[in-house]
Amino acid sequence: MRLAVVGGGSTYTPELVDGLGRLQEVLPVEELALVDPAADRLELVGGFGRRILARLGHPARLTTHTELEPALDGVDAVLIQLRVGGQATRLEDETWPLECGCVGQETTGAGGLAKALRTVPIVLDIADRVREAAPDAWIIDFTNPVGIVTRALLQGEHRAVGLCNVAIGFQRRFADDLGVAPDRVRLDHVGLNHLTWERAVTVDGVDRLPDLLHVHGAEIAESLELPLELLHTLGVVPSYYLRYYYAHDEVVAELRGSESRAARVAEIEQELLGMYADPALDEKPALLMERGGAFYSEAAVHLTASLLGSAESGIPQVVDLRNDGTLPFLSDDSVIEVPATVDGSGVRPVPVKPLAPLYAGLVAAVTAYEHLALDAALRGGYDRVFEALLAHPLIGQVDLAHGLADRLIAHNRDHLPWA
Amino acid sequence: MRLAVVGGGSTYTPELVDGLGRLQEVLPVEELALVDPAADRLELVGGFGRRILARLGHPARLTTHTELEPALDGVDAVLIQLRVGGQATRLEDETWPLECGCVGQETTGAGGLAKALRTVPIVLDIADRVREAAPDAWIIDFTNPVGIVTRALLQGEHRAVGLCNVAIGFQRRFADDLGVAPDRVRLDHVGLNHLTWERAVTVDGVDRLPDLLHVHGAEIAESLELPLELLHTLGVVPSYYLRYYYAHDEVVAELRGSESRAARVAEIEQELLGMYADPALDEKPALLMERGGAFYSEAAVHLTASLLGSAESGIPQVVDLRNDGTLPFLSDDSVIEVPATVDGSGVRPVPVKPLAPLYAGLVAAVTAYEHLALDAALRGGYDRVFEALLAHPLIGQVDLAHGLADRLIAHNRDHLPWA
Amino acid sequence: MRLAVVGGGSTYTPELVDGLGRLQEVLPVEELALVDPAADRLELVGGFGRRILARLGHPARLTTHTELEPALDGVDAVLIQLRVGGQATRLEDETWPLECGCVGQETTGAGGLAKALRTVPIVLDIADRVREAAPDAWIIDFTNPVGIVTRALLQGEHRAVGLCNVAIGFQRRFADDLGVAPDRVRLDHVGLNHLTWERAVTVDGVDRLPDLLHVHGAEIAESLELPLELLHTLGVVPSYYLRYYYAHDEVVAELRGSESRAARVAEIEQELLGMYADPALDEKPALLMERGGAFYSEAAVHLTASLLGSAESGIPQVVDLRNDGTLPFLSDDSVIEVPATVDGSGVRPVPVKPLAPLYAGLVAAVTAYEHLALDAALRGGYDRVFEALLAHPLIGQVDLAHGLADRLIAHNRDHLPWA
Amino acid sequence: MRLAVVGGGSTYTPELVDGLGRLQEVLPVEELALVDPAADRLELVGGFGRRILARLGHPARLTTHTELEPALDGVDAVLIQLRVGGQATRLEDETWPLECGCVGQETTGAGGLAKALRTVPIVLDIADRVREAAPDAWIIDFTNPVGIVTRALLQGEHRAVGLCNVAIGFQRRFADDLGVAPDRVRLDHVGLNHLTWERAVTVDGVDRLPDLLHVHGAEIAESLELPLELLHTLGVVPSYYLRYYYAHDEVVAELRGSESRAARVAEIEQELLGMYADPALDEKPALLMERGGAFYSEAAVHLTASLLGSAESGIPQVVDLRNDGTLPFLSDDSVIEVPATVDGSGVRPVPVKPLAPLYAGLVAAVTAYEHLALDAALRGGYDRVFEALLAHPLIGQVDLAHGLADRLIAHNRDHLPWA
Repeated sequence: MRLAVVGGGSTYTPELVDGLGRLQEVLPVEELALVDPAADRLELVGGFGRRILARLGHPARLTTHTELEPALDGVDAVLIQLRVGGQATRLEDETWPLECGCVGQETTGAGGLAKALRTVPIVLDIADRVREAAPDAWIIDFTNPVGIVTRALLQGEHRAVGLCNVAIGFQRRFADDLGVAPDRVRLDHVGLNHLTWERAVTVDGVDRLPDLLHVHGAEIAESLELPLELLHTLGVVPSYYLRYYYAHDEVVAELRGSESRAARVAEIEQELLGMYADPALDEKPALLMERGGAFYSEAAVHLTASLLGSAESGIPQVVDLRNDGTLPFLSDDSVIEVPATVDGSGVRPVPVKPLAPLYAGLVAAVTAYEHLALDAALRGGYDRVFEALLAHPLIGQVDLAHGLADRLIAHNRDHLPWA
Repeated sequence: MRLAVVGGGSTYTPELVDGLGRLQEVLPVEELALVDPAADRLELVGGFGRRILARLGHPARLTTHTELEPALDGVDAVLIQLRVGGQATRLEDETWPLECGCVGQETTGAGGLAKALRTVPIVLDIADRVREAAPDAWIIDFTNPVGIVTRALLQGEHRAVGLCNVAIGFQRRFADDLGVAPDRVRLDHVGLNHLTWERAVTVDGVDRLPDLLHVHGAEIAESLELPLELLHTLGVVPSYYLRYYYAHDEVVAELRGSESRAARVAEIEQELLGMYADPALDEKPALLMERGGAFYSEAAVHLTASLLGSAESGIPQVVDLRNDGTLPFLSDDSVIEVPATVDGSGVRPVPVKPLAPLYAGLVAAVTAYEHLALDAALRGGYDRVFEALLAHPLIGQVDLAHGLADRLIAHNRDHLPWA
Repeated sequence: MRLAVVGGGSTYTPELVDGLGRLQEVLPVEELALVDPAADRLELVGGFGRRILARLGHPARLTTHTELEPALDGVDAVLIQLRVGGQATRLEDETWPLECGCVGQETTGAGGLAKALRTVPIVLDIADRVREAAPDAWIIDFTNPVGIVTRALLQGEHRAVGLCNVAIGFQRRFADDLGVAPDRVRLDHVGLNHLTWERAVTVDGVDRLPDLLHVHGAEIAESLELPLELLHTLGVVPSYYLRYYYAHDEVVAELRGSESRAARVAEIEQELLGMYADPALDEKPALLMERGGAFYSEAAVHLTASLLGSAESGIPQVVDLRNDGTLPFLSDDSVIEVPATVDGSGVRPVPVKPLAPLYAGLVAAVTAYEHLALDAALRGGYDRVFEALLAHPLIGQVDLAHGLADRLIAHNRDHLPWA
Repeated sequence: MRLAVVGGGSTYTPELVDGLGRLQEVLPVEELALVDPAADRLELVGGFGRRILARLGHPARLTTHTELEPALDGVDAVLIQLRVGGQATRLEDETWPLECGCVGQETTGAGGLAKALRTVPIVLDIADRVREAAPDAWIIDFTNPVGIVTRALLQGEHRAVGLCNVAIGFQRRFADDLGVAPDRVRLDHVGLNHLTWERAVTVDGVDRLPDLLHVHGAEIAESLELPLELLHTLGVVPSYYLRYYYAHDEVVAELRGSESRAARVAEIEQELLGMYADPALDEKPALLMERGGAFYSEAAVHLTASLLGSAESGIPQVVDLRNDGTLPFLSDDSVIEVPATVDGSGVRPVPVKPLAPLYAGLVAAVTAYEHLALDAALRGGYDRVFEALLAHPLIGQVDLAHGLADRLIAHNRDHLPWA
């Protein structure tokens, strides 16, 4: 069994390697090929990865590649976790939308559109080359904005599925709060990537969400930076990313007074790379937790194992996939994020209960935006960028959409083939 | 043929009477019963109405009633155009949302929700009494928010249809611009009440919208107070009410510096009532044009005539009616505003082309709000008001929804049975 | 010795009576005349006041008067603590400025201007009648906005001084924090009414402010709802009212989501009046603390005693008085708030150190506003209101000043003789 | 007579050269030394300057210098018109303040502070070198922010005066409107640099401002982008820069939707440099008018001539100079902008009438900011930057001041020795 990781020079690749090491029985990988054009960085990360595998007694070979094709030979699954333009573009995505009074964030709003426009063409090119080299390989996209990128892949008829760590993060947290093993906890997780709500948290078939909110509501609300009262009124737990909607102006006020997340991540990355260079280090440093992406490795290992048939497929896993009628108010080709059964034949959504209007309205609006965003990513042009921004529920105004479109293009000219 | 007008003491009733007078061949009314609890006002308006009919040589009797039932005896159609709480509540609807930085308007946003909450119970009570007294009578709702009120009526299985003058206004204007008779102009008008776009303007089957935008775009844009560039980019003409979305912050900035529309309407109303009292006046004064509601009488006369079978039903009329699959992304019981064929059996939407995502996303989000708004109107309660506000695309934030819910209830306590 | 209290029916008059009772050795009052046109309320408060005095064994007579003149006969000092229009106008002052995105507060910004315009003519009329009836009596103004009202009184050459409880509140709090008796604590308190900073807190001549900030900074910052970091950076303690400047938008965001202070005060008042009606009650209820105005009675008793020569005058008291060169960048007739020596001949500011530019700039700007505000109060007219608003540092924009001027006048027409 | 121009490679130097050429009788220059480290640009501008002089028959030599000292030998006056960091920093000054919802402008607000911090140390270094090389030479500062830079120069006891083209622009415009020769028009121009009002426009001693506003008010208001009503209410003409105060939020809304001025200027500069390279061009191109700085050359020539004693000094010229009691509410060392008499001994303000509170309050607040801004420029440090921002009337809030201080420093690290 052979895996390739595109963007393998990322500072959080060691998280993934560690998961592969710990879960070798689930996913018996023989070769892990890290692909990244940044050779220096790739060597640092690759060397550290080998030490992790060695410490865990994992027999897999870890290879590094600055070119894609050599890594694709005989590959069974390709994980895509790249970042076009690196942390520098992220810093920009988080900054210029603020000039228009809009939240600056790399997956939501205008910043998320910028990332989509930069990323979709690159990922589609990679997918074409994967199809060429290994037509049966699965593509697992962890690159944001996962919803739009996965939609692009599926529209291109690639063998792809999107993955995000929000759901597994909630599952682990709730399991901990409830004092049960994570695999007994199922989420009624529904929506779009980064626009989801947990409507139920069942343990052995019993919904424990009311208890969770009763006992742990305050901490949950605090970690989401949303009012506890909201959780009680709605009876659901929104994803952290809903804060950009439910408390948009508050977030903008905070961003006005503080350093951006990107700047902090860039600092952490520098520090991590320094640590990775230490030949004595063979364990994930604690700092990696602050990098984001917690539990991503577990989710990726289980998903890959199920897709490649090496593990039982009974337990639903939350993934991003074609709607195909699951949420009947969305078109079939929309990409939604819900629990799905996974096996060698692919992913199939578990049936979901109807979505209440409070959530369905927002999901429909953001799906319309994602449709237009993908259109802009594929075909380019000022007007398409403008329309996607105008469609976004966090923007919606003509002046803002113009101001943001101007800035998006000015800041991303090097990454937009048509600009 | 017998018509009743609930809210008949309105200052724009003379507009309706004038239309009935001019179009007597279309709709041969024998009795027009004006119903209004405000007896003084009703007498002024009723007296003036009789003089209009006399001048136009219309044989109908115009009767006035401060109670509903006497007006319903043998009635064929009931037009509802009431305003709960009068211009004073409108002034409030236009004011307190501004305290939260949100547009204050009586049909859109938080002000529109307030009006819905006040109006739905009253209109449903009237509809029940109409059903009791005249089970076959049609109810034509012109009371705002027409979308939500019509949804309430249809959900209550009343024989009802909603009517708005936006479409007929565009039809007349475009006919004028194109130099053709209005009845040759058909609109591809689509959306929800006060949330519509003209996607085509056909004359004898040929779409003339591109010419219209080319030649008259600047004036059209100016009258909508929207940028001409937007019309050219989108290739459609949005309703004036879209300005509350597309230029929300600009409207708020304007409202901050200016007298409210309600204050102006209240002044016009006082002036109009003074004029109506003049026993020599038997013609619509020019000032009535400023009151709003232009062409409403034509639309109402034609719609009523078609429903009562007194006129040809072939020409589609724009009305508010059950979706029933017309826009497939909305539930069947949603109320949409599109051209429909009308005859004695009722209204049936003309098929509409798919709605582009830029419009569909907003329509879906506002429909979700309307669903929750009706729920709040029917069942009351702080949380339902809060949820409706949180669902509204112009609000969407928790703090704003709380602040607006508090204010909505505080300002409307006298009109909300449950508050 | 005879005191009159104009606005004596206020629910916090019992606080004052209690202070007089406790401090009878400082100020041996023989008669306390409460004046208020609201007879019912006055009787409730007066009755409760008599029980307080009785319990404390104070021999003074407490009389009640719905007319002013009877209370002025032989009076030595008149305390003015009235509120034109009552809590209802306060509620409005706190509300309509929010429509323009500006803080709604009854002493600061547009709400404060409204209160000044309503109050100045009434207070000047009272002062004229005091001068007529008792030319040597002192007028102590506790009516907000104290700065502008005192300026009006002094410009009218009345024997007047302004008083606020901010300084005494800080003194008591700091004494408590430092564990020393309040009379050992002196404040270097400087600025304008409701626009002051504590630059030093000396105990026996030693500045203890650095220690206070070191040890109690977090609690002080919390009670002011300002960041601790600000106190450390500046090395001063701003008055709570500075929050309306330093955190204006944050306050507006809070007000958008919450009930107004006025609504809460109105509730407390109703509850207090219910308690006062209990003939068994002869002690200040705890709820009175929430009413605001803490330590006002102590401050008022000491100030009155000093002015009437019944107490030593050596200890400086913080009052509002003519600048007369104290802050050299302000005109002599500006009213400032600083420590002053007080005796039978009046109040004289203690010399103050130069004010740093960070504070002086704001003080100068607000003084300019106060000048224009008084001009508008005395002479009326839309343009004067507009200019005062345009001059206010929290407003400063033409559109806002127009929008606020329109609303101020619309909401206060009954209280503005010229409108 | 010998002049040096520091920043002589600027694209508007040809404007200055043209003025020298046209006004050679006023100022008989023998050598004009252009100093600029950007050698290529300097040669283009210098070459074009020589052709202009040749065409106008001016005998002066025009020399170019990439080093300062060679240009200072025997110099009589040094004009400073440099821009540290060029248009790129200007673009930043106009951009990052918007992230905090504040106007981005290179002379006002946070952008102006950034420019001051970059510029003051450079200008002071130049001034020291001028003093060394030519102790009697006058320094004329045209570098923005002129108020703060001039304050720095005067505080350093340099022989300096500040100059801005706002006043001469109004004078020419009003002369044109009134149909009289410019030298008959005197302005009662008062305030600080970029914070001035024209209170009177006298022709032969008669104030014609009321007529001007009556007849030309609409065009004047339009060119200032301020409401005509404001000019009528106030009876004065504010400088264009007052718009950043009087219509702050409107300007921010505009900037959100549009390209920055800096981007436009950068384009114009590129185009101008292309033109200057044409050896056939010997006349100012029309495009130079769009570059800004109109009439600067006339003002500079007349001021220099008066300071060097080559011209009559009777006519007051508007300059930036020490207050020294002219506006009594400001400290002596404040720098104000008013008409002054100029001769070989220096500049002396013409007496000015008292400034009304509406203007004085703002002037005092901005002067406090300028004081703190200079302090930050001279001594550096985060807290000084923070305090200057907190003192600025367009900022004034703690969160904004922090957010802006962070961004100012992050964007200007290369130009701030202490950061």
